[in-house]
Amino acid sequence: MLNTAGQVIRCKAAVAWEAGKPLVIETVEVAPPQKMEVRLKILYTSLCHTDVFFWEAKGQNPMFPRILGHEAGGIVESIGEGVTDVEPGDHVLPVFTGECKECVHCKSEESNMCNLLRINTDRGVMIHDEKSRFSINGKPIFHFVGTSTFSEYTVVHVGCVAKINPLAPLDKVCVLSCGISTGLGATLNVAKPPKGSTVAVFGLGAVGLAAAEGARIAGASRIIGVDLNSNRFELAKKFGVTEFVNPKEHNKPVQEVIAEMTDGGVDRSIECTGHIDAMISAFESVHDGWGVAVLVGVPTKDAVFKTHPINLLNERTLKGTFFGNYKPRSDLPSIVEKYMNKELELEKFITHEVPFTEINKAFDYMLKGDGLRCIIRMDG
Amino acid sequence: MLNTAGQVIRCKAAVAWEAGKPLVIETVEVAPPQKMEVRLKILYTSLCHTDVFFWEAKGQNPMFPRILGHEAGGIVESIGEGVTDVEPGDHVLPVFTGECKECVHCKSEESNMCNLLRINTDRGVMIHDEKSRFSINGKPIFHFVGTSTFSEYTVVHVGCVAKINPLAPLDKVCVLSCGISTGLGATLNVAKPPKGSTVAVFGLGAVGLAAAEGARIAGASRIIGVDLNSNRFELAKKFGVTEFVNPKEHNKPVQEVIAEMTDGGVDRSIECTGHIDAMISAFESVHDGWGVAVLVGVPTKDAVFKTHPINLLNERTLKGTFFGNYKPRSDLPSIVEKYMNKELELEKFITHEVPFTEINKAFDYMLKGDGLRCIIRMDG
Ligand SMILES: NC(=O)c1ccc[n+]([C@@H]2O[C@H](COP(=O)([O-])OP(=O)(O)OC[C@H]3O[C@@H](n4cnc5c(N)ncnc54)[C@H](O)[C@@H]3O)[C@@H](O)[C@H]2O)c1
Ligand SMILES: NC(=O)c1ccc[n+]([C@@H]2O[C@H](COP(=O)([O-])OP(=O)(O)OC[C@H]3O[C@@H](n4cnc5c(N)ncnc54)[C@H](O)[C@@H]3O)[C@@H](O)[C@H]2O)c1
Ligand SMILES: [Zn+2]
Ligand SMILES: [Zn+2]
Ligand SMILES: [Zn+2]
Ligand SMILES: [Zn+2]
Repeated sequence: MLNTAGQVIRCKAAVAWEAGKPLVIETVEVAPPQKMEVRLKILYTSLCHTDVFFWEAKGQNPMFPRILGHEAGGIVESIGEGVTDVEPGDHVLPVFTGECKECVHCKSEESNMCNLLRINTDRGVMIHDEKSRFSINGKPIFHFVGTSTFSEYTVVHVGCVAKINPLAPLDKVCVLSCGISTGLGATLNVAKPPKGSTVAVFGLGAVGLAAAEGARIAGASRIIGVDLNSNRFELAKKFGVTEFVNPKEHNKPVQEVIAEMTDGGVDRSIECTGHIDAMISAFESVHDGWGVAVLVGVPTKDAVFKTHPINLLNERTLKGTFFGNYKPRSDLPSIVEKYMNKELELEKFITHEVPFTEINKAFDYMLKGDGLRCIIRMDG
Repeated sequence: MLNTAGQVIRCKAAVAWEAGKPLVIETVEVAPPQKMEVRLKILYTSLCHTDVFFWEAKGQNPMFPRILGHEAGGIVESIGEGVTDVEPGDHVLPVFTGECKECVHCKSEESNMCNLLRINTDRGVMIHDEKSRFSINGKPIFHFVGTSTFSEYTVVHVGCVAKINPLAPLDKVCVLSCGISTGLGATLNVAKPPKGSTVAVFGLGAVGLAAAEGARIAGASRIIGVDLNSNRFELAKKFGVTEFVNPKEHNKPVQEVIAEMTDGGVDRSIECTGHIDAMISAFESVHDGWGVAVLVGVPTKDAVFKTHPINLLNERTLKGTFFGNYKPRSDLPSIVEKYMNKELELEKFITHEVPFTEINKAFDYMLKGDGLRCIIRMDG
């Protein structure tokens, strides 16, 4: 690597200029990292539904022009003042939710919702000086969830990078930055299905299938996959899903279908769609007395979760999770090791690969519900 | 006791003839217990808000004439066919939610929502033959939640009686039949506040104060009592409540008041009001990252719990409980022992006592929010 530390880097980035319009590969200027920031060279990035939501900006605050992207693997190019945890050359995964290691959440064993660095989808600038590090001809381009990985170089807070084993292949482990860890952790850290239990997964995208994978690892005896898109079902079999329900194929609410299949409800359900109706159905699908429902999907701003309180009083539990309750800097390195030790298979999540210049194809695949994760090669 | 087994007993009962009208002490006929039923001589009963709700019948199915009452202590007078667990002379607490010991809930470690005997407020008859055991001149009078303890004699399913230490004073331990166990268990079995944590209790009736007592026993460092009735605050000090909030005295939502008092929210909240707005506030008062809210109050039929799903995704947990998750037959005897060993104080919950003939006074006290539990002496 050339020594670019302290200098503005000119490189390619995919800019979202307008809601729902194809990204445009532009030459952007990336300012050097400031206090507690690091500049990363991104090698691989992948597309998650959350990028698509904020690109569509339906029911979300529109913020354009913006550089999206938050699942990625890269190498530290340079570090800003005060950074001691990583150094140039380290292999890292940037993460949309950070870990300052000092706040009450970082110090709590239960939470990963760092006060300083938790996800903020409405912030398009760096925390340090409320400015963007990206510009085109002096005009700032907004950041996205502190990561903006659809760029050859990006600047992130040091609390938002997990330093990982340099032997880990970044084109595989990049998917652990968000979706796969989120689904896996939702099951293993939050829903915690007992061995032999029955689990329903709503939404069989990458996040939902990672949740199913978690259920399989936990020893669930039945894993019921629920999706509006029956094309997902064939793929889902690889992830241990044993039964399928397409709500569109039934003329009663899916929670009733599931209650009939399971004699009163599943032991655990995990919602991975982002749709409020699926959230409510997932909750109402769990068995009274002991059922636990975990919400993972990111809802629209105006969504309202509604249920009769008796569904709660009947001893059901409702929880939500961000990033599968993993603390990004503390926990991601060990998930990477799980992959290195072949306890976790990532290849089956990766269904497409495109060069950076064809990044819009990744959006098309996701919008069509075709495949799971599309890896975007930045050198392409 | 005279040998009355197998015979109809004529005795006094307080009959609710109409919604919201004073109960009338009538002479009723109590049929002998049928298969798996026991007939109890009630010695003491106390009034819980749930009785008042079904007497007012606002937002509930009206069912009259009915014999209310479900917190009580008594002695088994006779047993029906198939009953082996108790015998005449045993001291028992009747309970509104039973334990058949055979269904999937009774066999689960987590649930106390027995399939056969869980609370059913819409049933006014016995399960065995769908008939009432109470009548006046041949006209049946409805049962209430399987207990109907506002009668000198009542018939209950054997799965709804807990056999207790005969040395325990029934005029004290009768309050463990419902409210006190419910509040205590909501904290100790469900909310489980860690030592040193901050707990909010919504509603400082007997149930809420028992929840506060549970928080004190668990070692909570701050217990915030929330009630619309500031008269409750003086009494609540005896139960370890350290701070008070009357939502009426603030011009912002109580969850915001609590967030300010606690730097973001309490670690645990327990709702003991039955009002949907308090349920939502209790949930939204818990800290993100780790907060757990437990709903205890019985809502009206048409109540809807509404919240933005982001409140869940921010790693809050929402649960409900019936009867504090205690299994009535298995667990009540040991709560009685806690009282006998002076680990649990019941006297402070008992603020009034009336003879049976003055049972309507107990309703007046509760409607005025005066005191906690009023013991009704059946021999009076
Ligand atoms: N909480 C977090 O930390 C976190 C992290 C990453 C992703 N997410 C969210 O998780 C969700 C899933 O992400 P993904 O990348 O797997 O998306 P995806 O689009 O690949 O998969 C979503 C699936 O849900 C299905 N679906 C949509 N509505 C449905 C409904 N009502 N019932 C059943 N199925 C339905 C779709 O057909 C699709 O197959 C998104 O909301 C995403 O924003 C959350
Ligand atoms: N889930 C169960 O197993 C179970 C068992 C017993 C009782 N309960 C329920 O628990 C609740 C409490 O019972 P109780 O006997 O203690 O009743 P109570 O009437 O003695 O106490 C309720 C208290 O809540 C207060 N309150 C009402 N609305 C409020 C609001 N919006 N905000 C704050 N405070 C409010 C009242 O002023 C009162 O002091 C009732 O709903 C009862 O039906 C449930
Ligand atoms: Zn994502
Ligand atoms: Zn932090
Ligand atoms: Zn009660
Ligand atoms: Zn049972």
